[in-house]
Amino acid sequence: LEARAMKILTSVPELSSSLATFGIENAICIEVDNLIVVSGFTGLDLKTGAISEGPFEKHAHEAVDCFELIFGKLGLSLDHVIKVNCFLANPLQDFPSWNDLFKSRFNPPYPCRTTVGAPLVAGLIELEMMAHRTSRRAARIVT
Amino acid sequence: LEARAMKILTSVPELSSSLATFGIENAICIEVDNLIVVSGFTGLDLKTGAISEGPFEKHAHEAVDCFELIFGKLGLSLDHVIKVNCFLANPLQDFPSWNDLFKSRFNPPYPCRTTVGAPLVAGLIELEMMAHRTSRRAARIVT
Amino acid sequence: LEARAMKILTSVPELSSSLATFGIENAICIEVDNLIVVSGFTGLDLKTGAISEGPFEKHAHEAVDCFELIFGKLGLSLDHVIKVNCFLANPLQDFPSWNDLFKSRFNPPYPCRTTVGAPLVAGLIELEMMAHRTSRRAARIVT
Repeated sequence: LEARAMKILTSVPELSSSLATFGIENAICIEVDNLIVVSGFTGLDLKTGAISEGPFEKHAHEAVDCFELIFGKLGLSLDHVIKVNCFLANPLQDFPSWNDLFKSRFNPPYPCRTTVGAPLVAGLIELEMMAHRTSRRAARIVT
Repeated sequence: LEARAMKILTSVPELSSSLATFGIENAICIEVDNLIVVSGFTGLDLKTGAISEGPFEKHAHEAVDCFELIFGKLGLSLDHVIKVNCFLANPLQDFPSWNDLFKSRFNPPYPCRTTVGAPLVAGLIELEMMAHRTSRRAARIVT
Repeated sequence: LEARAMKILTSVPELSSSLATFGIENAICIEVDNLIVVSGFTGLDLKTGAISEGPFEKHAHEAVDCFELIFGKLGLSLDHVIKVNCFLANPLQDFPSWNDLFKSRFNPPYPCRTTVGAPLVAGLIELEMMAHRTSRRAARIVT
């Protein structure tokens, strides 16, 4: 029963300063029925609380770092991600770097992914991830 | 068993006129395994069926009203929302108002949220929400 | 137990050439707990591996064809889709065609849907779908 209850991660110390800068109070992530939804994040400088500086590669890595940090708080990792949604401020210019970064940060079998462009509120990338308490490494591969 | 069956809300009287104007026939929302997905909505004038007039704050409140109406048909409320996706026509200009509105319309612990800009088909905001039959008020808070 | 295990479709022969062109290695789709998430796809020419040529209607049909192909590999069909997310490169121009196409490709009761515009990495449409192993035809209709 406990395993199926809803859990809400309302704050993460390393992200608090960044979120307070923008007056953001939404949940960091919510787990229910073994499914985990996470709020969108851009690349953040966890020391200053500011949107991290470019270039794109560094900034995008820092966005992925946020999710790795968040999943760690739940005893999970990027191996539990089933779906990544990526919004790029400059989609044509940055897609190749994002695609390389995706392959370097996730382990195969990779999660599902959608990437589109969008005028962002802040930063060069906005990432969303959906995860499951089952690791992709334990999945059955179908081809 | 019944609790896990799929339910489809195909129409809501208050929204019918608006959707008919655009020839839209998709489901309003679908519930399965206690998870509820909802179609995207902008701010609608439920009396005339038109896209509601601005300013942004009024229009965005009316978009949230649509979801409150929809969840009510399932015996649910905004307290059951786990994830909000918001697309803003003018992200830099309207994010602060949207952020304030979010905090005024939802009760803590807040749901997860992602906000990006997008050229919209209609209106100044397009909202999506995912919900669960468990209320956030019954969740275990993790920090 | 098996029914609830995670399955990852890592490749589909008909899509391999297209994905290799862009160096894309993400999963095609992942099923867990009867929920299926799928990567985003645009219209592809499955013979050449290129982004399919316009006009919009043909190209958009080919995007839907990708999903029909993918769901077929899991013994599912478009009847199992609960949510469609559509990103249009030219939202004002192409929404009416997309709305008509949606009604022609899906059977009622229709899935949920959200459509917004977005500057795309490739093509005129980027589609996402979430599905469930329960068919919409078996759902209870609520009005």
